[in-house]
Amino acid sequence: MQTIEKTEPKLLDLKTRLAEINDIEAAASLLYWDQATYMPPGGAAARGRQLATLQQISHTKFTEAAMGQLLEDLRPYETSLPYDSDAASLIRIARQKYEQAVRVPASFMAKFSRHRTETYGAWARARPENNFAAVRPYLEETLDLSRELANFFLDYQHIADPLIDFADYGMKASFLRSLFAELREQLVPIVEAITSQTPTNDSYLHQVYPASEQLEFTLKIIEQLGYDFQRGRQDQTHHPFMINFSTGDVRITTRVYENDLSQALFSSIHEMGHALYEQGIDPELEGTPLACGTSAGVHESQSRLWENIVGRSRGFWQFFYPQLQSFFPAQLGNVSLDTFYRAINKVQRSPIRTDADEVTYNLHVMIRFDLELDMLEGKLEIRDLPEAWNERYRSDLGIVPKNDTEGVLQDVHWYTSQIGGMFQGYTLGNLMSAQFFEAALTEHSEILTEIEQGQCITLHKWLKEKIYHHGCKYTATELIRGVTGDVLRIDPFIRYIRQKYGQLYTL
Amino acid sequence: MQTIEKTEPKLLDLKTRLAEINDIEAAASLLYWDQATYMPPGGAAARGRQLATLQQISHTKFTEAAMGQLLEDLRPYETSLPYDSDAASLIRIARQKYEQAVRVPASFMAKFSRHRTETYGAWARARPENNFAAVRPYLEETLDLSRELANFFLDYQHIADPLIDFADYGMKASFLRSLFAELREQLVPIVEAITSQTPTNDSYLHQVYPASEQLEFTLKIIEQLGYDFQRGRQDQTHHPFMINFSTGDVRITTRVYENDLSQALFSSIHEMGHALYEQGIDPELEGTPLACGTSAGVHESQSRLWENIVGRSRGFWQFFYPQLQSFFPAQLGNVSLDTFYRAINKVQRSPIRTDADEVTYNLHVMIRFDLELDMLEGKLEIRDLPEAWNERYRSDLGIVPKNDTEGVLQDVHWYTSQIGGMFQGYTLGNLMSAQFFEAALTEHSEILTEIEQGQCITLHKWLKEKIYHHGCKYTATELIRGVTGDVLRIDPFIRYIRQKYGQLYTL
Repeated sequence: MQTIEKTEPKLLDLKTRLAEINDIEAAASLLYWDQATYMPPGGAAARGRQLATLQQISHTKFTEAAMGQLLEDLRPYETSLPYDSDAASLIRIARQKYEQAVRVPASFMAKFSRHRTETYGAWARARPENNFAAVRPYLEETLDLSRELANFFLDYQHIADPLIDFADYGMKASFLRSLFAELREQLVPIVEAITSQTPTNDSYLHQVYPASEQLEFTLKIIEQLGYDFQRGRQDQTHHPFMINFSTGDVRITTRVYENDLSQALFSSIHEMGHALYEQGIDPELEGTPLACGTSAGVHESQSRLWENIVGRSRGFWQFFYPQLQSFFPAQLGNVSLDTFYRAINKVQRSPIRTDADEVTYNLHVMIRFDLELDMLEGKLEIRDLPEAWNERYRSDLGIVPKNDTEGVLQDVHWYTSQIGGMFQGYTLGNLMSAQFFEAALTEHSEILTEIEQGQCITLHKWLKEKIYHHGCKYTATELIRGVTGDVLRIDPFIRYIRQKYGQLYTL
Repeated sequence: MQTIEKTEPKLLDLKTRLAEINDIEAAASLLYWDQATYMPPGGAAARGRQLATLQQISHTKFTEAAMGQLLEDLRPYETSLPYDSDAASLIRIARQKYEQAVRVPASFMAKFSRHRTETYGAWARARPENNFAAVRPYLEETLDLSRELANFFLDYQHIADPLIDFADYGMKASFLRSLFAELREQLVPIVEAITSQTPTNDSYLHQVYPASEQLEFTLKIIEQLGYDFQRGRQDQTHHPFMINFSTGDVRITTRVYENDLSQALFSSIHEMGHALYEQGIDPELEGTPLACGTSAGVHESQSRLWENIVGRSRGFWQFFYPQLQSFFPAQLGNVSLDTFYRAINKVQRSPIRTDADEVTYNLHVMIRFDLELDMLEGKLEIRDLPEAWNERYRSDLGIVPKNDTEGVLQDVHWYTSQIGGMFQGYTLGNLMSAQFFEAALTEHSEILTEIEQGQCITLHKWLKEKIYHHGCKYTATELIRGVTGDVLRIDPFIRYIRQKYGQLYTL
């Protein structure tokens, strides 16, 4: 982009402004990371204020009239360039984000932000007490505010569309609804078939596994999978996440349960998948809004591809299981690879999304997605939400949560953000992960053999080149088309599930 | 301040603006803390930019014309209030900092900042190579820029005064020069008397002490001394420092050498002294420029009071030494308290300031201070600096550094900041620490007995009430007057040294 800068001073101006905003956002991210990892309790009150201040400064700078003018002035220049050139993409994506940002008045943002903070507090108290009534008035207000937020964006087909756009730009509620209906129709019978069989014994995973050895093993695995520790690190937290402050500093967090080997292991690989994406972005895009993943769905496709398609595959453990056994000889010395492989892929009807296996996981997600649409459409009142939740669990998963704590109160999303657009990314990610992986195998059938040898270089290189490198230059739909030559489909995911679980269970 | 806010909206406006700046500065501090503790190497380049951006935003906001106007408009209100009321102090100190900030043009700041970054890089390469010639041109430019910086401030008596003001506001070069001359005159014969005697054997401190046990022991000590871990934490770094993001989050860092027990132990207590100061600030001052220590000197008085006057006292180890022995029975089981006490107070002629004992330390500092004045006055050229350095070491400390690495290249200060105002705070701190401690003992003679019982509650409470609570409401001179009823003197420090070292050596 060096030559372009010389010929177009307004682009340089835009990049300078965006770099400043990027720096502020990176600082805010670090405030968050620290809060979730090392901050002592006494820092909490001031930290909340510091985060709010930085977010407000960055919002103010991004929505300045001069920014809008600059983006407008750059239109002719943008159209003179190839669509996916760095410069045209930068202008296009900056404008898209700018237009999203200026629609919402600052006063509304502040009001909604305060409400979310209060709601989160109420939820944190209500959840352990199984007290949905205590959060109901908050959630009613959240629904009103979510509708209000959506209505700042005109021209939508469905009221959820602008909310979905925040996470999965361009995905429409109507499309997702039918895609998900199709997926559910395929999945429900598979779950029924599996869960009618003898349950898998996964008690081996629930012996005592000392935390420090677990951490050491996860570090070993993610390093071997290609996570660059020169440009990242892993720390412990309550709810694992990936976060980055530049393409040179992409961190992950994990949590360790001494009586559950799966937690640290798979959450580390999951977050590492997110991190490989961010570490793989073209360094030329550093400091611009292009230096991030395309969407919640595409991001999740990478965490799930590495966690599940690679990390829960038999080939992967063919290589790594002997190492795991040597870390934990007392616990796993007499457990065969096959027994272990079955245990980490146990399918069961459970009420908790985050504990769900690959087969049932999307059913959890789609329940939430559909309930969001129903609430936004006015078909479902907040007071009827717990009942609707439980009813859908009964029909889709064949179980009823024993209380609201493990029902409608389980996920933080609605209580810390809006209602609408919160969940589709998880299932989109699973679908894309299978579709991307199938495309990778078509081009490089050696990937499976490499995985069996503990090597993922070809896969990683392919993903970097096809997906990571571009940052968010392409929309999810453009990216899927570019990478797979097709639109988003459920078929690759269903094929993947049928093939893998057809070997583990009778389908 | 609640009622005041109601009656004076402009004060509320001022506080709001200052709180925003405070938040930005706290975020910048966290960027720095992270850089020095956990940041992976790949984060360095972006981190430099992020820090610069935040500093620039905070500087811009602080020097806005509206800020100046507000401070001007608040003058009548300020004078209507008691001098040391929270509100009057806030306005006064904010104005003082504002006036310092607006004197220096942003363009100069940017130029100097770039130069300092380059100089630091050159120094980091030159120091291990013992190559003063490589940094000489940088340092010449630094001297020019330091003079230029001083000259933005008119009305000074000595060109170093405005530079000293950045760290020790109100201290004048002429005053310090004569104070320090007097101190040197007293110290040189004491050092001569001690170093002509048989050297103390401190080899016990240089056995192998495993890092994790050292860290555990330092945590135990600083907790017992009153450091609040609910509002702080200790992490490892290369060059220990204290840093705070609010009065509720005041962190310290330390470094551990397995073959030197003193390092972690005394650097932890030293940084804890700084931290007790910040943790003790009135929470009402949170988010204002009053919520920080008064000056470099007063801050250092607290780190040195806790590190040396308490932490290297016989009474302190009377209580803690048995605990230390039980941590390291193999290393210290057969070493008596007296032997240990002598070892941690070993006086020797050494070329390195940061390794120096209590008796020689100030000689190191005053050499640097005098050389700064000579350079600023034009009496000493940079090319003659190494020779002048070595000559002063010969005359004051009776040794000559064997090369520039352990001579003029040893401290980072001139290579990362300006020449002038960099060192006086260390000696001021030592002098004040003795003067404050003497005042505390006059009021509470039980303090010494409490220390022997591992209790520092009376001392800590007294320091909190007299010093910490006020933040930077008072200048160092006002504070010393208020706390000790006297001006700053060398006598308490000399009395302290004579008394303590008169027992350890023949004086």
